[in-house]
Amino acid sequence: MTEQTMPFWLKQRALLTPGRTAVVGDGEQVTFGELNQRARRLAYFLAGLGVRRGDHVALLMTNRLLTVELIHAISYLGAVIVPLNTRLTPAELAWQLNDVEASLLIYDTAYGDKVEQLKDEVSCQICADSQLDGVNAGQVDDHQVSLVEHIALDDVHTIIYTSGTTGRPKGTLLTFGNHWWSAIGSSLNLGLHADDRWLCCLPLFHVSGLSILMRSVICGMTVVLHDKFDPQRVNEAIGRDKVTIISVVTAMLTAMLDTLSTERYPEHLRCVLLGGGPAPLPLLKACVSRSIPVYQTYGLTETASQIVTLSPDDILAKVGSAGKPLFPAQLRIVSDGQEMGAGQIGEIIVKGPNVTKGYYKREDATAQAIQDGWLYTGDLGYVDEDGFLYVVDRRNDLIISGGENVYPAEVESALLAHPDVKEAGVTAAPDPKWGAVPVAFIVTREGATLTEAELVAYCTQRLARYKVPKKIYFVSQLPRNASNKLLRRELRSLVQQERQPGAQG
Amino acid sequence: MTEQTMPFWLKQRALLTPGRTAVVGDGEQVTFGELNQRARRLAYFLAGLGVRRGDHVALLMTNRLLTVELIHAISYLGAVIVPLNTRLTPAELAWQLNDVEASLLIYDTAYGDKVEQLKDEVSCQICADSQLDGVNAGQVDDHQVSLVEHIALDDVHTIIYTSGTTGRPKGTLLTFGNHWWSAIGSSLNLGLHADDRWLCCLPLFHVSGLSILMRSVICGMTVVLHDKFDPQRVNEAIGRDKVTIISVVTAMLTAMLDTLSTERYPEHLRCVLLGGGPAPLPLLKACVSRSIPVYQTYGLTETASQIVTLSPDDILAKVGSAGKPLFPAQLRIVSDGQEMGAGQIGEIIVKGPNVTKGYYKREDATAQAIQDGWLYTGDLGYVDEDGFLYVVDRRNDLIISGGENVYPAEVESALLAHPDVKEAGVTAAPDPKWGAVPVAFIVTREGATLTEAELVAYCTQRLARYKVPKKIYFVSQLPRNASNKLLRRELRSLVQQERQPGAQG
Repeated sequence: MTEQTMPFWLKQRALLTPGRTAVVGDGEQVTFGELNQRARRLAYFLAGLGVRRGDHVALLMTNRLLTVELIHAISYLGAVIVPLNTRLTPAELAWQLNDVEASLLIYDTAYGDKVEQLKDEVSCQICADSQLDGVNAGQVDDHQVSLVEHIALDDVHTIIYTSGTTGRPKGTLLTFGNHWWSAIGSSLNLGLHADDRWLCCLPLFHVSGLSILMRSVICGMTVVLHDKFDPQRVNEAIGRDKVTIISVVTAMLTAMLDTLSTERYPEHLRCVLLGGGPAPLPLLKACVSRSIPVYQTYGLTETASQIVTLSPDDILAKVGSAGKPLFPAQLRIVSDGQEMGAGQIGEIIVKGPNVTKGYYKREDATAQAIQDGWLYTGDLGYVDEDGFLYVVDRRNDLIISGGENVYPAEVESALLAHPDVKEAGVTAAPDPKWGAVPVAFIVTREGATLTEAELVAYCTQRLARYKVPKKIYFVSQLPRNASNKLLRRELRSLVQQERQPGAQG
Repeated sequence: MTEQTMPFWLKQRALLTPGRTAVVGDGEQVTFGELNQRARRLAYFLAGLGVRRGDHVALLMTNRLLTVELIHAISYLGAVIVPLNTRLTPAELAWQLNDVEASLLIYDTAYGDKVEQLKDEVSCQICADSQLDGVNAGQVDDHQVSLVEHIALDDVHTIIYTSGTTGRPKGTLLTFGNHWWSAIGSSLNLGLHADDRWLCCLPLFHVSGLSILMRSVICGMTVVLHDKFDPQRVNEAIGRDKVTIISVVTAMLTAMLDTLSTERYPEHLRCVLLGGGPAPLPLLKACVSRSIPVYQTYGLTETASQIVTLSPDDILAKVGSAGKPLFPAQLRIVSDGQEMGAGQIGEIIVKGPNVTKGYYKREDATAQAIQDGWLYTGDLGYVDEDGFLYVVDRRNDLIISGGENVYPAEVESALLAHPDVKEAGVTAAPDPKWGAVPVAFIVTREGATLTEAELVAYCTQRLARYKVPKKIYFVSQLPRNASNKLLRRELRSLVQQERQPGAQG
């Protein structure tokens, strides 16, 4: 077969529906025609900085119109976008920049301090957003550089870092095809209306936010872009900006409902897409009783966002379920190599054209995660008799805190770097606001006088704030199995004991 | 890259939305779950008749629920569907069955007479629909035969015969991918609503009808299936069956408006997709004034239906245009190898994943039609300054009569077979009901006493009724160029002369 190509998305979208609104954000409304012009101008500017086909260009940016323009501009040059989590520490950012072999970092001046601290640790060129001022004032030149006209679905579009059980983050390769099939699968499930406006208050550096931009340009849909999540602003925008779809995580939805002054949202809000881990049933039931159309969804960076989502047919009958696979995708529950029957809990594995082809320069990790086309998610769940997925637990070791993934191994690695720490074990503690937060169990070296405050301060230098343990328990030993492997599951029961008043007495 | 596979469409659709209505027709409502069960039973039955992967199974069927079931059943066996035009003569049908090397013909008893006349001319097995009675009463057995679980987008799904300038029809190969991308392109343009119901009163043996079934199963959309076009029934069904989209050709839309007793259609009718050739502007303007949402579209069998279609943004501003390419497709106007500028007429060429990979066993015709991925349609048109296509004329020699394609070369070939006919030229005459009808110019052999009635009767034995010339003009010579090539364009002016009263005096 020949490789599947198609016209460059933004260019084609601007050709087909130039006057349709692409983005509402930063107090502006920009059409697809204008967005295309801006992205092209930026692309020529970036070409002037030396960006070439195949280069890795990292973005340390807030949710701004400029970020949207940059994402398309980088693609227009055939370069690969590396969105960086703005909450990471300079040390974490530098590590990712070096691992991904970035040739250029573009940053928001809001993160100037971080960049100042990391700049000596990296070899890439660095460009502040202020250097891009005025690019849009210029005309589009027929520059020497030729912009991409057609893309192949197999070309890499993005590298997004995810952490894992092995400590260091891995760069997930997402192709144009991954994003394309994700967008198509989503629209086949949720439908596509001429008046659709998708509110994006999730970070564009996560696949959950980025995928909204991809759907926008593929489906010709308006994105209402918020620079950060503010429940009051979101509630206002839903009415004022005629939002029809919004992507949220549990903590966000809870906050939205807490600040909602009316009983219901306006009728044009046809889908609240709820991702980021199993949702509490009381929240879901509250939504049903208030006629809020919540669609639970299950997805990972590795699946370019959603891969299993409830459908309009089932949102009332299957409350608590994440639904069924998107049309081009498949789902299985396995345990010890056997497929599980209805109701039996096992590991969730998924397959489909939106699944990553692997991790950047990590052949072993890729081979371990993807076998025969199936992605082994490590998450636990079961499928009921009607084929609906219930996610029981994210990977044993994964802590989802306010929608951000925290990998205990990464936090433990930071803790163990402290000279006074002999052993470290990190697990989740329930938290009313964030769903869960990381807490640590520490065995100190003999004679050490380490305090909780000292160790927290140490972590804060090395880890994004949401990864820093919210509580540190000093213990004499950690639960380990015969081969001395840390039993994180048992840490959880330790947390419960610690939280019981009796245990503290 | 690896070949793109996905779950078998009907199976996946039945897994995802089993209770959703798939087809309303034959006085029944069938869900996707039921349709899947029926198709599987039929597939096992057909396997019992010997149908195997790669076989060509021809269907001579009206628009019935059984036809829908058979289409999916044949695919379930990995066999290729060959839909036959039921209006063809036994001789035409036999020719196609032999050309396509069909292993099995399944026919509607309504066409028993035709089958009786052709059965000695073909070598394939023949199965009447009555033999399938009772198949649905049985249980689905875990038969020895394994049904298709996954399809590759490159696999051939259908072979549909189209005629052409060379006289004999050619079998257009349509892959699963062609149908998939057509359905996706359509939904990205027209949108996809949870309540969508697409009325199909076009024959399922044409790509225009068949593609509705493909969209149904891919997008999870209900098809309201009519066995034939009846304007009164269609108008009633739009209201009663809550039809949101309908595909029509000009003659059908005219008849619908003529019999419509109200000023407007109900609001839930959101799209009247108008194909089958350039539409008269007065008809389009009448629709605008009556708020009928007409979307002109341009497509061919070779593009698996639509490839250029108006978008919701433009149906009022660009009346008369067929719109812009579907998202994954491209369009150019060329003349003598040069791309034409805005407003310049040339040949319409198109490219995209919904374009056929060629004609069955016709390498030369394939190489001629498809060059560097571009399909040379032979149709004439131009693109305006905003990129909108205006189809000026279908291929010089093509007559579109009530939505059916009539190729003069094929009709001429039948005429020339008569011993008294020395030369024959066929062209279109305008017709108030059908848009156009074929008429013939004949030079008889010396001494012949052939009459119009005799020649029409002769053609009726050999050609489908819509191909039989509606008028025969006996002339002393035909317009030819220096190399003795028939100038069909000049035949058109002869028709105009013949129709002027003065010319007949």
